[in-house]
Amino acid sequence: MNFSSKLLENAVNEVSQLPGIGKRTALRLVLHLLKQPTSHTHQLSTALTSLVDNIKLCKKCHNISDVDVCEICANPSRNTEIICVVEDVRDVMAIENTSQFKGLYHVLGGKISPIEGIGPHNLSIDSLIGKVESGNVKEIIFALSSTIEGDTTNFYIFKQLEKFKIKTSTIARGIAVGDELEYADEITLGRSIIHRIPFEKSF
Amino acid sequence: MNFSSKLLENAVNEVSQLPGIGKRTALRLVLHLLKQPTSHTHQLSTALTSLVDNIKLCKKCHNISDVDVCEICANPSRNTEIICVVEDVRDVMAIENTSQFKGLYHVLGGKISPIEGIGPHNLSIDSLIGKVESGNVKEIIFALSSTIEGDTTNFYIFKQLEKFKIKTSTIARGIAVGDELEYADEITLGRSIIHRIPFEKSF
Repeated sequence: MNFSSKLLENAVNEVSQLPGIGKRTALRLVLHLLKQPTSHTHQLSTALTSLVDNIKLCKKCHNISDVDVCEICANPSRNTEIICVVEDVRDVMAIENTSQFKGLYHVLGGKISPIEGIGPHNLSIDSLIGKVESGNVKEIIFALSSTIEGDTTNFYIFKQLEKFKIKTSTIARGIAVGDELEYADEITLGRSIIHRIPFEKSF
Repeated sequence: MNFSSKLLENAVNEVSQLPGIGKRTALRLVLHLLKQPTSHTHQLSTALTSLVDNIKLCKKCHNISDVDVCEICANPSRNTEIICVVEDVRDVMAIENTSQFKGLYHVLGGKISPIEGIGPHNLSIDSLIGKVESGNVKEIIFALSSTIEGDTTNFYIFKQLEKFKIKTSTIARGIAVGDELEYADEITLGRSIIHRIPFEKSF
């Protein structure tokens, strides 16, 4: 690209570093900002810099939080005996939106992935084991995505927890509500038959 | 969305104001920034704010520029007798990339669009007429996109220029190089037959 302005070129280069945003999209976004009042861009930059400068991870669950202990961990009405293990903050938000879980979370910060160079020690697994060791936890729910990395991570944590007498479970895999059977992949459909549930409990 | 952090929520809201970026994409982008060193985000914000604070429009062609008169207008080897009328900086970049045009540009800053409330007086049409009045211009090339708004704008400017004895032309419409005839729309194909060119000139 032949830019008529170094300032423009610089801004486009910075924006195109974001994942999934190429040079053309970056140029479109930057030109959009130029058409807006400059205060919009200042608000955007302030929001981003104050986020990266001031954000904290909850000391208990490692979720993203403005304070040392996040709202969920600080909430006395949550059940501290059940811990749901998730990958990142998006999973916490997704599960919270269902209003079906009243326990606590433990955010790993990723999945074990040798290809990306992420081993168990890059994740907050030790502090999860620590919580179980302290003896207050009765059940661990694995809610990682169903990929090789997710399964490996689940299995690694499961092995570490074997010596403790606690319940471990994983979220149900099956046909999504509203999906057609014929389009479901065979592994999912197969598992949904093996792990079928009593009809009267299915509402 | 149920955010665990006001800082995160604020950043996601700001990013999702950008065109074509919804809340989910904004969250993905913001979480990506959080995984990077904070210096990345500071560079990004600085690039954006210094762009909107310091950018200028070239006094002659209204193109985006770091200085009062842009590189193209300041270049003594360009032909000042031909002016190519375009909508915005992206069109200038696209035409410059072809290396086929050695004249000057005139950036309108948009197209006449009653639906979006953009009239002739919101565009830099008067200064174009002024350039023609000064008597140094021999040809005006219309290079706006071929939409109703583009055609309306072309026609409005054409009417204003009728009293001056200058050549006005518009970029050729036709089948793109490499395209199959059967997939071309009929208006484009029709025009490409009416405005056919001598074979020996077509290389």
